[in-house]
Amino acid sequence: MQELEKIGKLVRYYILESTTEAGSGHPTSSLSAVELTTTLMFGGFFKFDADNPKNPNNDRLLFSKGHASPLLYSLWALAGKVSEEELLTLRKFGSKFEGHPMPSFEYAEAATGSLGQGLSVGVGIAINGKYIGKLPYKVFVLLGDSEMAEGSVWEALELAAYHKLDNLIGVLDVNRLGQSRETMYGHDLEAYAKRVGSFGWHTITIDGHNIEEVAKAYEEALSTKEKPVMIIAKTLKGKGVSFIENKDGLHGKPLTKEQLPEALKELGEVDKSVLGTIAKPENMEPAKPEVKGKFEKASYEPDTVLATRKVYGKALARIFPKFQNIVALDAEVSNSTFSKTFRDEYPERYFEMFIAEQNMVGTAIGLSNRGKIPFVSTFAAFLSRAYDQIRMSQYSQANIKIVGSHVGVSIGQDGPSQMGLEDLAMFRAILNSVVLYPSDAISADKLVEEAAAHKGLVYIRTTRKDTPLVYGNDEEFKIGGSKVVKSSNKDSVTVVAAGITLHEALAAYEELKAKDINIRVIDLYSVKPVDSKTLEKATKETKAIITVEDHFPEGGLGEAVKSALANMGAKVHSLAVTKMPKSGSPDELLEYEGISKSAIVKKVEEVV
Amino acid sequence: MQELEKIGKLVRYYILESTTEAGSGHPTSSLSAVELTTTLMFGGFFKFDADNPKNPNNDRLLFSKGHASPLLYSLWALAGKVSEEELLTLRKFGSKFEGHPMPSFEYAEAATGSLGQGLSVGVGIAINGKYIGKLPYKVFVLLGDSEMAEGSVWEALELAAYHKLDNLIGVLDVNRLGQSRETMYGHDLEAYAKRVGSFGWHTITIDGHNIEEVAKAYEEALSTKEKPVMIIAKTLKGKGVSFIENKDGLHGKPLTKEQLPEALKELGEVDKSVLGTIAKPENMEPAKPEVKGKFEKASYEPDTVLATRKVYGKALARIFPKFQNIVALDAEVSNSTFSKTFRDEYPERYFEMFIAEQNMVGTAIGLSNRGKIPFVSTFAAFLSRAYDQIRMSQYSQANIKIVGSHVGVSIGQDGPSQMGLEDLAMFRAILNSVVLYPSDAISADKLVEEAAAHKGLVYIRTTRKDTPLVYGNDEEFKIGGSKVVKSSNKDSVTVVAAGITLHEALAAYEELKAKDINIRVIDLYSVKPVDSKTLEKATKETKAIITVEDHFPEGGLGEAVKSALANMGAKVHSLAVTKMPKSGSPDELLEYEGISKSAIVKKVEEVV
Repeated sequence: MQELEKIGKLVRYYILESTTEAGSGHPTSSLSAVELTTTLMFGGFFKFDADNPKNPNNDRLLFSKGHASPLLYSLWALAGKVSEEELLTLRKFGSKFEGHPMPSFEYAEAATGSLGQGLSVGVGIAINGKYIGKLPYKVFVLLGDSEMAEGSVWEALELAAYHKLDNLIGVLDVNRLGQSRETMYGHDLEAYAKRVGSFGWHTITIDGHNIEEVAKAYEEALSTKEKPVMIIAKTLKGKGVSFIENKDGLHGKPLTKEQLPEALKELGEVDKSVLGTIAKPENMEPAKPEVKGKFEKASYEPDTVLATRKVYGKALARIFPKFQNIVALDAEVSNSTFSKTFRDEYPERYFEMFIAEQNMVGTAIGLSNRGKIPFVSTFAAFLSRAYDQIRMSQYSQANIKIVGSHVGVSIGQDGPSQMGLEDLAMFRAILNSVVLYPSDAISADKLVEEAAAHKGLVYIRTTRKDTPLVYGNDEEFKIGGSKVVKSSNKDSVTVVAAGITLHEALAAYEELKAKDINIRVIDLYSVKPVDSKTLEKATKETKAIITVEDHFPEGGLGEAVKSALANMGAKVHSLAVTKMPKSGSPDELLEYEGISKSAIVKKVEEVV
Repeated sequence: MQELEKIGKLVRYYILESTTEAGSGHPTSSLSAVELTTTLMFGGFFKFDADNPKNPNNDRLLFSKGHASPLLYSLWALAGKVSEEELLTLRKFGSKFEGHPMPSFEYAEAATGSLGQGLSVGVGIAINGKYIGKLPYKVFVLLGDSEMAEGSVWEALELAAYHKLDNLIGVLDVNRLGQSRETMYGHDLEAYAKRVGSFGWHTITIDGHNIEEVAKAYEEALSTKEKPVMIIAKTLKGKGVSFIENKDGLHGKPLTKEQLPEALKELGEVDKSVLGTIAKPENMEPAKPEVKGKFEKASYEPDTVLATRKVYGKALARIFPKFQNIVALDAEVSNSTFSKTFRDEYPERYFEMFIAEQNMVGTAIGLSNRGKIPFVSTFAAFLSRAYDQIRMSQYSQANIKIVGSHVGVSIGQDGPSQMGLEDLAMFRAILNSVVLYPSDAISADKLVEEAAAHKGLVYIRTTRKDTPLVYGNDEEFKIGGSKVVKSSNKDSVTVVAAGITLHEALAAYEELKAKDINIRVIDLYSVKPVDSKTLEKATKETKAIITVEDHFPEGGLGEAVKSALANMGAKVHSLAVTKMPKSGSPDELLEYEGISKSAIVKKVEEVV
């Protein structure tokens, strides 16, 4: 206990020192959680092999309140893994001690800083422990009280309870103050206990600065069965320094160099030689899945007419023997996205995420943290719900795959609320993302396999409507590739399409051919990265490029092509969805938006 | 009561008939809520002037479960506003009876169909009634049980309770079955009552098919003070038709033409002449705000150095006398976005939305429904949280303004989690959106005014860093415009920039000029719509176009320019954020990402 007090004092010292040196950062939000985290890490509760952060048996500690990063870094200094000198590089260019935790810091389990996301990542890690790896590790998530306003937290709470994640322990640092004002519930711990408890969690309310109470809470949490646990702690923002303690207006404000000595004097003498001890984890092997059959190649009869969305789950099941880390998540539309086909084969590798897309993507980040290859599916339109989590997944360097079905106006009668029309823009604008858009069963099946093999974020856009085969079983598809589906030595213009519009382009090809106009047709199934070479060749060999997409004009396939050709002075004409979409039959809507066969024919005749 | 039974029977008849005729749609989800809605509308509780849907005193009924649209349309048939013949055009091309409610149907208060959004819209309408217009109307929101999984619903619940919206009544149709399976809580009404009650709502649990219980619940709800009310009703999906009632696997499945007669036979004889009566609303005038001072033009001293974000709230306060429908919402970062400056002037027109961005945008849609001009602000990065609501706002034809601060790597030390780097892509990919990106105090101030004057979605991107003036007080800015800030008759290339990069471009201009290289500098402050004419002229008069943006390359300013020039065969080179961002000083990061003055100089010298 005395040792923990000494440790806490030094942690406070480092928090204050490093943020003042940085000239920015969040000391007050860090100070409130010192006892909560030092007691966890150095009080014998947290089990972690600090020499091997990747040890599958390690407990995990996530800072959902990522702005408390100075505390996170200081804790690892006390664990002997970070020097004081290193701490003083906080927030400096090139330092791994960034403003908010990033994977550059090896003990950060996920990139956080967009609030309300950490608990979902914890859900993913906990699902892996309890149901996949079957390992006894625990997941601790430090939450701020302000972020409890985020709906995503309540999604994580409900799903964690539903899946009975008793290896998940939330630590809620109720320091009362948000960025600009008091939070909705201030220091009313019961307000949180009532709400979190009603969601099926076991709750424990404590004084978060009383080490004894904190230790008891961890004991109780670790022995709770069948329910996740939330420790709800009353704390003071800025705790330990009288002139900043529990005061409004000091969020994200470090002490000045003038204030620092006074604060350090208040702390009293610190022993810089003190080190905390972290308990060692068990040494168990993660469980292995039962695999059905051997890995086989994709194979379809030539007369197959099948929607790419219907291929998705089949492909996942087919490749599972080769990619045994696959886990599927779906937002309660598995019978529309056809992730259900995989679930029927591998029910223990499918987790129902209900209609809560934010938590679903966060959970995927957690599964990726534990080496899994999560495939996440829902309607493409509803992925917009999780765009912040998708954005953050890339900063976590997560290896996740996202499948969006029901794209474009070609879904028909359901109307615009269900049409994914901005998904290409959304996913293209994520750093280093891969965006794939298959047009038939064979390309869909093979691209699912490519996605699994690729390390990083991959988005696959699938179509609602059944489509005939364009390719044979031996055709190969790779990320960054494209297919010249029709070409001759007298092509007048090039039509670049993908997915549903490829079929319109092929129909246009036939009609134009009958009129003795030859067009080149390119299937741009890899929208990002894009096959610039093939596009450049077409630019040189034909008069103009026409792009056709079932998507709004901005940020999609058309602009991908324009970007690829921008330095060549190419002429690119784009057909896309430009009128307010409505209900109707797929064909009526393709026609209405000017992305149908006849629209392509008309445009070609205009340009020729 | 007997009348309500007759009405209910005819509503069921229409639901079944119209969906079978359409060959798609959601009869089972409509049937479960028949008593809940007919009792409300025709039992004397709902007050609405059906001849004047825009009457400010009307109660409002929102279908958050938008897939129950056949029920919505049938209710208005019973109100005498829709004919049976019209109902049979359901989901057909050109019909106003779309798959999910759209503004084409004059009694739909908002476009719904992406679940979990209706309650937030209700919060906005309720805030208007209670705090702005000070009118006694009520807002009813029909919710499905599946959508309760969405975090956005819990955001709306917490905010409604915080703001004590006792004019907001939720009606939760617990029909137990989702799309692919049973919901998390099945028919356990207490599970919902506990959760919703813990969030500060008054809850009433009932049998949703018992008209008497339903009527009593509305009575109780309408007399509850200081708290919003949730009526939680046990219902059966497909109620009224034995062979589809309470059965899994029938979501979104209409009866076949063969099944329909059998179902109608079960219903028994219907009286097609029956009509319901809707009670009339009161006749009150909405309250008017107290306006401080007169409208004045923007005016800044020539030596002003001020971040565009800091101008935002000042501008709002300045224009309020001219635009008295303005309401500001902020996600608890008003001291960063500087919406606080407006709040300090007009506290009664500012509503704290805490860190719950989805509900914030939904609330704005509700305020727009009531004729307000909501301005919503938070960090641009966190707007990604509300992308689904932003997408849906356009289908609601909402008149909302969104301000995203802290854009790009130029925010510096906080790191990527706080950097808006995909916001331009996000907002450009929304149909008919306007995207503005001011570079100095004067353009920021004037563009806020332009945004208020424009009818429709406007996004304004503001910068964290202080920047000097580029323009004088008399300069005019309009949506779709641009400024040629530097030009001569011997410009070699054109640099197109906006916001922070305009200042880098101007610095590059000076450096290059000293080397006797003249460049044209265009401030593309209107990223959408884009000023094609000015760009085309520059393309003709200079050798190449170089775009520079503090944003990822996809979907942003660079691609906007490429799209504008795609038919001209222009050569466009783009500088943008292409490396994993990190913490550092703004200047270090602009340099690192190759979007600084020196990167521009280098690129110009390469291209010249």
